Amino acid sequence: MHTLSGDLLLQRLGEQPADKLHKRLYNAIRTSILDGSLPPASRLLASRDLAQELGLSRNTVLTVYEQLQAEGYVYSRQGSGTFVAEIVPDRCLSATIAPIGVCAEPPRAELSQRGTLLLQHASACPAQWGVFIPGVPDVNAFPHHILSKIQAHISRQPTVQCLTYSNQGGSPELQRALVDYLRVSRSVHCEPEQILITEGVHQAIDLVTRMLCNPGDDAWIEEPGYWGIRNILRVNNVNICPMAVDEAGMVPPEQVTGRPRLIFVTPSHQYPLGSVMSLSRRQRLLGMARAAGGWIVEDDYDSEFRFSGQPIPALQGLEADAPVIYIGTFSKTVYPALRLGYVVLPKPLMNELKSAHSELYRGGHLIIQSALAQFIREGHYTAHIRRMRLLYARRRGFLTSLIEQHLGKKALGRFNSNAGLHLVLNLPAEADDVAIATAANQRGVLVRPLSRYYMLPTDRRGLLMGFASVPEEEMATAFNILLECLHAGRV
Amino acid sequence: MHTLSGDLLLQRLGEQPADKLHKRLYNAIRTSILDGSLPPASRLLASRDLAQELGLSRNTVLTVYEQLQAEGYVYSRQGSGTFVAEIVPDRCLSATIAPIGVCAEPPRAELSQRGTLLLQHASACPAQWGVFIPGVPDVNAFPHHILSKIQAHISRQPTVQCLTYSNQGGSPELQRALVDYLRVSRSVHCEPEQILITEGVHQAIDLVTRMLCNPGDDAWIEEPGYWGIRNILRVNNVNICPMAVDEAGMVPPEQVTGRPRLIFVTPSHQYPLGSVMSLSRRQRLLGMARAAGGWIVEDDYDSEFRFSGQPIPALQGLEADAPVIYIGTFSKTVYPALRLGYVVLPKPLMNELKSAHSELYRGGHLIIQSALAQFIREGHYTAHIRRMRLLYARRRGFLTSLIEQHLGKKALGRFNSNAGLHLVLNLPAEADDVAIATAANQRGVLVRPLSRYYMLPTDRRGLLMGFASVPEEEMATAFNILLECLHAGRV
Repeated sequence: MHTLSGDLLLQRLGEQPADKLHKRLYNAIRTSILDGSLPPASRLLASRDLAQELGLSRNTVLTVYEQLQAEGYVYSRQGSGTFVAEIVPDRCLSATIAPIGVCAEPPRAELSQRGTLLLQHASACPAQWGVFIPGVPDVNAFPHHILSKIQAHISRQPTVQCLTYSNQGGSPELQRALVDYLRVSRSVHCEPEQILITEGVHQAIDLVTRMLCNPGDDAWIEEPGYWGIRNILRVNNVNICPMAVDEAGMVPPEQVTGRPRLIFVTPSHQYPLGSVMSLSRRQRLLGMARAAGGWIVEDDYDSEFRFSGQPIPALQGLEADAPVIYIGTFSKTVYPALRLGYVVLPKPLMNELKSAHSELYRGGHLIIQSALAQFIREGHYTAHIRRMRLLYARRRGFLTSLIEQHLGKKALGRFNSNAGLHLVLNLPAEADDVAIATAANQRGVLVRPLSRYYMLPTDRRGLLMGFASVPEEEMATAFNILLECLHAGRV
Repeated sequence: MHTLSGDLLLQRLGEQPADKLHKRLYNAIRTSILDGSLPPASRLLASRDLAQELGLSRNTVLTVYEQLQAEGYVYSRQGSGTFVAEIVPDRCLSATIAPIGVCAEPPRAELSQRGTLLLQHASACPAQWGVFIPGVPDVNAFPHHILSKIQAHISRQPTVQCLTYSNQGGSPELQRALVDYLRVSRSVHCEPEQILITEGVHQAIDLVTRMLCNPGDDAWIEEPGYWGIRNILRVNNVNICPMAVDEAGMVPPEQVTGRPRLIFVTPSHQYPLGSVMSLSRRQRLLGMARAAGGWIVEDDYDSEFRFSGQPIPALQGLEADAPVIYIGTFSKTVYPALRLGYVVLPKPLMNELKSAHSELYRGGHLIIQSALAQFIREGHYTAHIRRMRLLYARRRGFLTSLIEQHLGKKALGRFNSNAGLHLVLNLPAEADDVAIATAANQRGVLVRPLSRYYMLPTDRRGLLMGFASVPEEEMATAFNILLECLHAGRV
């Protein structure tokens, strides 16, 4: 069956003076665009279909489409076809001398390939506070009055150093406070000048990736893992290599093929499954990173919250001069919108990455950094963490008992360690965890589907459930709603 | 004359069993690396030189270098040559099974190409506060006590919305306050949802570039212009097209060749020369952006400070649905380390860029944003700007009279308009403005060399002198120091 636009072009082809076939087709399409027969943003027939309708070779059609595209009459969007441009040259080139108003079409909102890719994988959720939201601490339990008072004192008459751009990698007081804190509580060994204060983990990952990876370089990530890392790697054109996770953390390949430039791991508390990386696995990974001349990026996002057993020391401190870039955040220990994190840079990268940071992002937010340093120095930070450890342990216990009682012990994820701000509820492989989570979210229960934390197709199904921000008295009601959603999803 | 390493390789070539020449050369170099004769990080002879020394064809040498590189024995750094790797495969591949410690070399600190390029053009200065520093407002004149009080009130008992990640593009109160402010003071027309609060101008430029430019796309910038834009374009692999600037702003080419995806301009007060873009130039640029399907990025960094005549309305408001992305900052009106700026997004890009922002950088810093919104709403912001306008006008007058008195009227840059936070002191084409600025900086006078604001070689010489942050009583002394440096530099 002929399409309307095929008919139109066939007719116009006939109207063209005798000329080479591709020239006549070019004119027919161009005229149709200029007189509005093919309106802006309309989709041209696929080259194969148009060739068939007009009885031309596909190459002729492709040549003409390419010329039209080069001249700006049409544009192609990868995977979805060729479209008439919003602004076509004949109508607009004159605007460079003609008065404004001749061309009132809105400009085309075409995104870059990296931008399109990023939005295709957009994962940040609109709702950022509610029952069972994973990864969010109890922001109301933070002693806001103490930090507020310290900050008010500093910001009333701030020093000039707090007000201008920072080239030092952040507030020197905060760097010093972190060195002490990290040594004692995380077995991280570093000097103050190795610490770079960042706008959270995302900026840290972005900086490291841009400075250390060429487009096409390999980066290993955990599968499943944090979506944020994947998106930053995508936008930087890095080749993402997902590595499975077992009860001992990331499973590195038996034989190293290629040379991973960066290896992203959460060794103290794998995100989201919860396993802890074994010592032998840690040593093996360090050896592999050295062999490849690459770097391990240790994302130590919530290891302050371990409710039983010894704290797990960081990979960074396991050996001297380890090829490890250590990343930490205040999002889980203070509150997410504080938007402060830090990187412990290996000495060989220290000056380069600090310099790149001030070139790319410039420094700032120094008053809140100074205030936080004082908050840490005066002991409020560790006191708050200790209090939250007790609170979150109790809430975690309450949630696991609800799960065991209603769904049985097997519903608790295998690798869930007694730590962190969330746990994984296992679902059978045939369950649709995305549909269940969507239904629950609509009823205000902000669980997240486990399958979405995988990059490749998987038959693992489950729900991430945050317990840190949910008072026990709200948990039972919310859990009943979740049970209804599970039931409706035939689990 | 033969070099030492040439001699060594020549000798080892002879020791190799009869084989193809390139195979023998490969073995000779590899052995020298493995036994440490060519130590890690040492530079190999340039292929041309080695070929000459060994009497081989350059192609043979290149082939061998490439193979050694593919196998990880050497690496090349663009523009500086080929180096022996820190970690060579034979010594280290066994580390994947051998115990840790076998390979104790520190990991190689090789940066990515974009990273190397960025650092080659690093321009952020270590000193960020001092006499005549350009682009820095008088941070001590800001009413810190007022903003501090507002912030203390909000942060003592913050709402949950201020504490979790933001997906809305920033604090809604600040978005609304900015809509009113921008309409009245800058003739910018927008809705609150078009406003995205960013971590300053750099993040705004980075976001726009990543989302709208593919690698290799053209971006027009002003020549001379702000170094920060160039560095962000470089790291995103965008093709930078510098366009000259005259007394009417950026001079667009007579005939548009290519399709600029982004056009970066400072129409209200060209940075750093100070000219104001004429209406006809504005209209022409808008037409060109539309014709190319591209976007103008209007960097309106300091136009609040215009000391005579009418304020210059923004390009954004010149016509409805203008293809303009408007960028503003609080760095000049409040203080740099506040690290807050904003983008007024065109409606066709609004949702995409806000979503990309939360994927890439996540949102936050909402307490200070709310506080700033209240500060604006209560009139403190415009009152401060009015006060600073008088103060900076007086300081500018004092500096220009010093210049005219000691160096004559011709020393004042041609396009200097009576605005902004800095002016340009002209120097003769034979002056070495970099050397003069370096000498002055060493004596605490933080002028910047004009030639460094050009991307291409130029014979324009001059000094950027900030006047906003310098009390008159300090200016005369500092100016005398500068005169001595000029004299020493034979100006």
